[in-house]
Amino acid sequence: MAEVLVDGQASDCVPPDDRGLLYGDHLFETVAFVGARAPLWRLHMRRLTRDCERLMVPPPDEELLAAECARLCEGQHRCVVRISITRGSGGRAYEPPPCPVPRRILMRRSWPAGLAASRRDGIVLHTSPVRLAIGSPLAGIKHGNRLEQVLAAEHARRAGVDEAILFDAKGRLVEAIAGNLIVFVDGRPVTPARRGAGVAGVGLQALHERIGAVLPEAQLNARDLRRAEAVVVINSVAGIRPAHRLDDRSLAIPDEARGWQRLWDELFECED
Amino acid sequence: MAEVLVDGQASDCVPPDDRGLLYGDHLFETVAFVGARAPLWRLHMRRLTRDCERLMVPPPDEELLAAECARLCEGQHRCVVRISITRGSGGRAYEPPPCPVPRRILMRRSWPAGLAASRRDGIVLHTSPVRLAIGSPLAGIKHGNRLEQVLAAEHARRAGVDEAILFDAKGRLVEAIAGNLIVFVDGRPVTPARRGAGVAGVGLQALHERIGAVLPEAQLNARDLRRAEAVVVINSVAGIRPAHRLDDRSLAIPDEARGWQRLWDELFECED
Repeated sequence: MAEVLVDGQASDCVPPDDRGLLYGDHLFETVAFVGARAPLWRLHMRRLTRDCERLMVPPPDEELLAAECARLCEGQHRCVVRISITRGSGGRAYEPPPCPVPRRILMRRSWPAGLAASRRDGIVLHTSPVRLAIGSPLAGIKHGNRLEQVLAAEHARRAGVDEAILFDAKGRLVEAIAGNLIVFVDGRPVTPARRGAGVAGVGLQALHERIGAVLPEAQLNARDLRRAEAVVVINSVAGIRPAHRLDDRSLAIPDEARGWQRLWDELFECED
Repeated sequence: MAEVLVDGQASDCVPPDDRGLLYGDHLFETVAFVGARAPLWRLHMRRLTRDCERLMVPPPDEELLAAECARLCEGQHRCVVRISITRGSGGRAYEPPPCPVPRRILMRRSWPAGLAASRRDGIVLHTSPVRLAIGSPLAGIKHGNRLEQVLAAEHARRAGVDEAILFDAKGRLVEAIAGNLIVFVDGRPVTPARRGAGVAGVGLQALHERIGAVLPEAQLNARDLRRAEAVVVINSVAGIRPAHRLDDRSLAIPDEARGWQRLWDELFECED
């Protein structure tokens, strides 16, 4: 069965002149499927549509995407589909064609191993040596320019940790490599204000809208993080993962995070 | 004859899981060839090797690249080869594999039309509404995360101009969309200091090293630009293009730029 659909056709081939490949000129969503159902589908589609508008890429037909995802997920107990919408081929170097014809690249991936254990026992974080650029015109968008995250992930791999805390060039706390952060300071959970950097995550959005967590934004720096009691990483596929260690420090796993995890599991109607 | 070589094989196909496509996880060089000769080859290879090191991508074999470029350029009077070195396939999401096997994608393009006229008569610039992010860990690298340039090029296309002036989020002048800038202020040519943004261009490097132009760096803002007498865009393929218009203002074409153009033509031993 097909694992990749390019414009709806089973394929292992993307043309070398695709602008997604040439310039990272694309948007993507990584969608968790439980059987044929994607519990966070509407949030993903809302962000994708908004991001297409911001990057001036014609948005895809949502029903077509849903049908293609269903084909990929057929017979799967659980899986992940990465949906990439590139600006297609053509144009003159950086300049897009006047009427771009986007290319849809859908890739099925198996469900990541070890998530249940990492949610239960917590993960190990370090403070990344990579600082995110600030003032980006791309801030908040889930786009294909992800070299900062790749570099941070390479540093995390070499350090032997599960995830990393990213500050921006001004020393403001932003996010994790692949997820947003929730930081407990003085017993209160807050989420870092992302000013000119970072991604508006679907997992965090679901925690707000679907689970009803109250998570005010706060501008946090390294000192705030040092006195934090707990740190939680939220990602739409991996779910809610508390950290049990950050650099050389042990962290508590707050009851509130356990409560969110239970509601998240109900949302997904599944257990690992 | 092949127009694209993927790892040395004529191909129109890149695997959808290539990290260059997934994350813009690659580096590239756009090399001008006159017959089989690339006058700026050594500068391109020096930057590519340095950038690979910064992004922790194993550098390509320079002789192999040269041989593959020669295959692509065979029989061409003049052409451009884009060399992309991606981090290949594999890894876990953003995390690169421990031992990445880079993929070489070489694409031949025809020589851009209209360059001679644009060098002779000058080009039209506008001030881009896109502001570059600052404090980037990727500053100076010719990497595959080029959405800022794509957005700026789309705005330039809509405005009907040839190129654009890019400021960073702090209002500092940085570069053009596809080239570095030389700005004449008080009769003296300077090049904007690129702090935490922009690309270290091979064209500008050639102007320093091969043509001997003395171009001190200066931190410039919008006010400096308004009182500039002339602006020149330098790009390793398009060469030295003076601007005759910037926004609503006419600009002079300085004799010094004409002198550089003559030396550039000698370097390339060609005339359009």
